[in-house]
Parts: sequence; C-alpha cells; structure tokens
Amino acid sequence: MKQRIYLDNAATTPLEPEVLDAMMPYFTTHFGNPSSIYSYGRESRMAIENARKSVAKILNAHPAEIFFTSGGTESSNAAITGAVRFLGCKHIISSVIEHHATTHTVEHLHKTGEAKLSYVNVLPNGHIDLKHLENLLAESEDKCLVTLMHANNEIGNMIDLHKVGNICKQYNAIFHSDTVQTVGHFPFDLRNTPVHFITGAGHKFHGPKGVGMLYINENVKIEPFIHGGSQERNMRAGTENLYGIVGFAKALELATKHYEADSTYIKHLKAYMMEALKKHIPEVDFNGDPLGESLYAVLSVSVPKSEMSEMLLFNLDINGICASGGSACTSGADQGSHVIRAINNNPDRVTVRFSFSKHNTTDEIDTVVEQLKKMI
Amino acid sequence: MKQRIYLDNAATTPLEPEVLDAMMPYFTTHFGNPSSIYSYGRESRMAIENARKSVAKILNAHPAEIFFTSGGTESSNAAITGAVRFLGCKHIISSVIEHHATTHTVEHLHKTGEAKLSYVNVLPNGHIDLKHLENLLAESEDKCLVTLMHANNEIGNMIDLHKVGNICKQYNAIFHSDTVQTVGHFPFDLRNTPVHFITGAGHKFHGPKGVGMLYINENVKIEPFIHGGSQERNMRAGTENLYGIVGFAKALELATKHYEADSTYIKHLKAYMMEALKKHIPEVDFNGDPLGESLYAVLSVSVPKSEMSEMLLFNLDINGICASGGSACTSGADQGSHVIRAINNNPDRVTVRFSFSKHNTTDEIDTVVEQLKKMI
Ligand SMILES: Cc1ncc(COP(=O)(O)O)c(C=O)c1O
Ligand SMILES: Cc1ncc(COP(=O)(O)O)c(C=O)c1O
Repeated sequence: MKQRIYLDNAATTPLEPEVLDAMMPYFTTHFGNPSSIYSYGRESRMAIENARKSVAKILNAHPAEIFFTSGGTESSNAAITGAVRFLGCKHIISSVIEHHATTHTVEHLHKTGEAKLSYVNVLPNGHIDLKHLENLLAESEDKCLVTLMHANNEIGNMIDLHKVGNICKQYNAIFHSDTVQTVGHFPFDLRNTPVHFITGAGHKFHGPKGVGMLYINENVKIEPFIHGGSQERNMRAGTENLYGIVGFAKALELATKHYEADSTYIKHLKAYMMEALKKHIPEVDFNGDPLGESLYAVLSVSVPKSEMSEMLLFNLDINGICASGGSACTSGADQGSHVIRAINNNPDRVTVRFSFSKHNTTDEIDTVVEQLKKMI
Repeated sequence: MKQRIYLDNAATTPLEPEVLDAMMPYFTTHFGNPSSIYSYGRESRMAIENARKSVAKILNAHPAEIFFTSGGTESSNAAITGAVRFLGCKHIISSVIEHHATTHTVEHLHKTGEAKLSYVNVLPNGHIDLKHLENLLAESEDKCLVTLMHANNEIGNMIDLHKVGNICKQYNAIFHSDTVQTVGHFPFDLRNTPVHFITGAGHKFHGPKGVGMLYINENVKIEPFIHGGSQERNMRAGTENLYGIVGFAKALELATKHYEADSTYIKHLKAYMMEALKKHIPEVDFNGDPLGESLYAVLSVSVPKSEMSEMLLFNLDINGICASGGSACTSGADQGSHVIRAINNNPDRVTVRFSFSKHNTTDEIDTVVEQLKKMI
C-alpha cells in the first residue's frame, strides 16, 4: 500500500502526540468527577479551570467567557438559539455559504417561527457583500442576529471580524461568528474584537474530537442550551469531557506557540500547490479568493468536468490521497457542495478541496499534482 | 498519603484499561473524519457503526435505534424536548427525585409554556406511587410524556420499566426513562420493553466521559436536538467523538460479559456494608429501599446530625475516602440533596451516599466503617 497523503486537514487533523500525553493522566489515575467535592474531584476541577484560563489567555478573553462544549456544532447551536430565545433577536441574517451547523440551525428557528431569516449576498469571489449586510440591518424592524463564519471551510474565504462586528454594533445587532476553522489557526484578541459569540472545535487544530468551545462575551447573558447539573457555571450541563477539555487547551497552546512558523510554512505550501497546478494543469481554476482574504490552510481547486474528473476523489483515494469535495459532514451525502453552488454554479466543473497542515510537504504536493495531471 | 478508597462510582468510574486500549488507535493512526468518503474516513465510520451494532445487540435493540451523544444529560434533553416538540406531548409527568438533567429540562419546557408539568407522588421509601401516576394519566386532557428514571442515582430505588411502560401504553403516553445508572449495570431487553427513550453515559460503567447514548424506539420519530451535518443519520450533528464511541461500546461489552459475576460481587459488598454499619453504628439508617427494588451499587446512609457528622464528607476526604452527599453535579453547590429532601426531610439527619464497583473490597469497607464510627 502506498504512503498515505493526508490533505484534508479542514475536515479533521491528527491528534498531536504531546496533546495525547497531556490527556493521558485523566484516562488513568485522575478520573474523579470534576463536580465531586473531595480532593480526587477537585484535581479534575482544577485541570478544567486551568484549561479554561489558558484558552482565555490565548484568545485574550476572560475565563468566565469561555465555555466547553461537545464541539463546534453544539457551540453554534447554543449561540444562535440563545441569541434568538434570550437576547430578543427576532431576525437572523446569515449567508448561504455557512457550515450546516449554522444553516440548519437558522433554518430550524425560521421554520418554528421563532425568527425571520435573511441571507446576505455572496459575491462571485466568495466574499460577503457588506453593503448588502448594512442594507439588511438598516431595513430590519427587529433586533438582528448576524451569523457569519470567520473562515469558510470549503473555499477558505475570510471575513474581517472587526469590520463586520462594527457594522453590527452600529445597528445594535448581536454578532456570532463560526470560527471553527480559525481557532488554533489565527491570532485572536477578543477583548478588542466586537463579537458576541465565537466557536471552536478541538479536532481542527490537532486536538481531540468531541470537545469544543463557546466564547460568550461578558456583556451578553443567555440561558443554557443543555439543561441539567451546574457544570460550566450553570451554562452547559453534563459531566465534563475531562480529557477532551485538557486536550483542547493543550492543542491550542501548542498551536499558538508555533503559530508564526506553522502558518508561514502552510501558506507556502498552498502557494506552492497553486503554482504547480497552474504549471502542469493549465485548465485548473481556484474557487474563492485564495491569495486574498483567505485562510492559508485551504485551497479549493476547480477542474473541467470529464468522465475522469468526475471520479477524481475516488481515484485520489485509490492512490492514497485524502481530499474532499466539500465539507466532510455532507461528503457522504453526494449532494455536491452548497457553498460551491452558491458562488459558482457551473455544471461543467468539478471541485476538490485540499487543506494543509504542518505535517504536509512539497514532495507530497508534487505527487498529488502529478496524479491529478494523469486524472484530468 | 493514605491509599485512596473510592466509593463514589455512581458519580463516575475509573476507565477500564482494556477500554483505553480499544480507543488508542483512534487517538493515533486512525484519525480520519468518519464522514469523509476516502478509505481513511471509512475506517472511522466502520468503527462507529460496529460500536452501534454492538451496543444495539447488547440492549436487544435495532442499530437504527441507537444514537451516540455527548452524554446522559444531552440524551435526556434531546428525548424530553423531542417528545414535547415533535410527538405532541403537551403534558409532562415526572417526579421530584429525577436527576437534574431531567428536572431542569422539564422545568424549562414548563417555563416556556411548551408543556404542562405534573409530579407524581414519591412514597416515603423512595418509590414512585404508581396509582398516582395512573390517576394523573387518566385525568390528563393532553398527550403525556412520562419521564421517570430507572435507578435513582442517590438512593438506588428502581422502577419496573415494564410496569411503568405498560401503564403509559394504556394511556397512549410517551415513556422516557433516564437509565444512566443502569446501562452497563443491568440486562436490558429493549425489543421486549415498552419504553420509547432510554439514555446512557459511558463514564458510569468504566467507559469514557463525554460520550453517551440515546435509544429512540423505531416507532417514534423526533427531529434532532443539535442541528448541522448529517452525522448519526441526521439525528445528532457534529463530528463524532470517535474514540468516545469506540470506548462506550467496548466498556458496555466488558460490563455485559462480566455482569453476572460483577453484580453478584457488588451486591455482596453493599449487603456487607449495611451489616457492618448496623453492627458498629446502631444509629445508622438507610434511605430508600436498599434491599428491595434497588440498584446493587448504591447505598444511601443516614446518620444523626452532630457537629462531627456535619463534617462527614470533609473528614472522609481527609482520610482518603471518596463518597458524596448527593449527586456529584450539585455537590459543589452545597444546597443539600433534592432527592433526600423529597423523601425524608429530617433536619436532624445527615446523608452520605456510598456507591460501589468491582474494584472495591470488603477490606475497604471495614476501613470506612471504622472511620465512620470515629466520626459519628
Ligand atoms: C441518573 C443520572 N442521570 C443523568 C446523569 C447525567 O449524565 P452525564 O453527567 O454523563 O451527562 C447522571 C450522572 O451524572 C445520572 O446519575
Ligand atoms: C466552519 C465549520 N463550522 C463548524 C464545524 C462543525 O464542527 P464539529 O463537527 O466539530 O462540531 C466545522 C467542521 O466540521 C466547520 O468546518
């Protein structure tokens, strides 16, 4: 079997061995319930509170603003539902290129009649039409929730949190941003960013699956999404995913420590792949704004449709190359990508997303480009 | 430091080393996103589907009835909320001795006006007054959701799922049972049990924290509680807690394999402790129905209040003994136990819960009884 080439890091990343090491004591000796009052439980509680402090410090937030959840999806559900039910946002403004964790949540709230729903226009290059956002806000008769993702997981396009947040502020709107692709990949400074809710998922930055984070700005108060025990200061009930939380914090610490070097390296990989593709496969094109406001880890490649290219992912897989057509969580569904459809509904082209990590090399990219050349 | 004696297994249990071994490959080499279509992802998907099949087989359910969640709390939230919003249950019948995962959820739905709420009477021995349940159902003008826990986590009292389920059936009510204390500790046969929803949490039977299960009987259809990607057959969105799910199934397999031996042994420990306490501390009493319909792993001990006994948990802790006053998730809150208050509101007595696992020994119990004797 060929050496595997993993270029699907926007779907999930390998767990960092150092992160697993940090989690290990909690799988073995330190198993106490964090809510128990004896010392065995207090050790677990301490591990969680230290994780919270560490995450807060890295994001420049207050520890009381950080809540651990089961993942990015739960975090977005809690934020969006909370803003509608407890902050009086009866009008949601979102975009059609959001992750399904957002889209399906806002559609649900719309269906139940709890909120109106508007979609802001998306420009052909995948960016949000901010003029249109401003118009929608200006025309709205209700308090608005604006939910727009920081970096798109399929095409990499990024919004400027400050710009969007300031527009929201002007219209007294609540601003939630799905930052699942950027927490661990971007230097946040939340105390100086006009945003009410952001989200994170451990497995997107070499941390564990099944654990996420929700930042709730201290100026807004919502009720819990999951009811029960008094964990997470009454904000998220359920016995804590102790190892997951410890791993989340450790992974974020490592990602932050190596951010400069890793992001520079990965940016170089992306540029390298773009160049190599253009050189060897002149028919390629790129979705979004890959060299502009774009996440350095994601490259969305478009090729002309042919019998061969329709089987592209399949043939890549046979050759040990992991890439995806869209977001992982719908790739099984074979409905194509709602994001690509929204920005470029060209039936004659096929899209493949490559997403990089520090573990990838230019050699791997050479191999992939070579294979792609044969397949197109 | 003294050897620790852990008698709080109803709060959480140590992870079985064999379970950690089963999880390990998914922390290292097998990290693919279960939703990814390449072989790397399919391996993860396979691990999850095998876990589901195994859990279903053990509970005698259909794999399509098993959904993995982040824990027992989320499972109960999803079931109860789902029954109210999607099965037309506009009247909830519950009890005041439920876990907060239930109580706080039904109170929330009552507060929002989505459902009426009635509490069935609890008898002094901690059992549910089934005559009263029947009266409540007979008098209700709405479709009812009955939510009653299988084994109480504080006093151990158990309901008969068949008896309660048949009463519910008679009145066309939906029946949810919080089985977090019994999944992994009781031989379920769901195909032949009249229940619509049951729940489980891995960490209660030597499995991992942060993962749970929701059984939804194939005859009822609810919408997801967490919206997003199409994971768990569109029922629970979010990248799966792959290791957690693998660990949940492995822990349940081991618990089932050793059920006869372990339950017999633990039952013996409980009886042994009851005898020793009665012999050495004649003032003790036991809450609930410890030798009747009661979970073999839980013993709720009541002692006369005194300056010493009020510090009981604290002094036990100093002596390396882990026990709890009530459920773990409120033990920090120091409000006393809502369960004990409901069945026996005697201000002159103090309650300590001891809960056992296969790892405990009669020697440990001798030590604890000796210590207790000094403290009372
Ligand atoms: C009876 C019962 N129900 C529900 C729960 C909640 O489970 P979890 O904390 O794993 O979400 C627990 C334990 O905490 C419990 O004992
Ligand atoms: C942009 C974005 N938002 C949300 C999610 C959901 O995160 P999770 O699946 O960890 O819940 C993902 C990844 O799956 C994502 O890429």
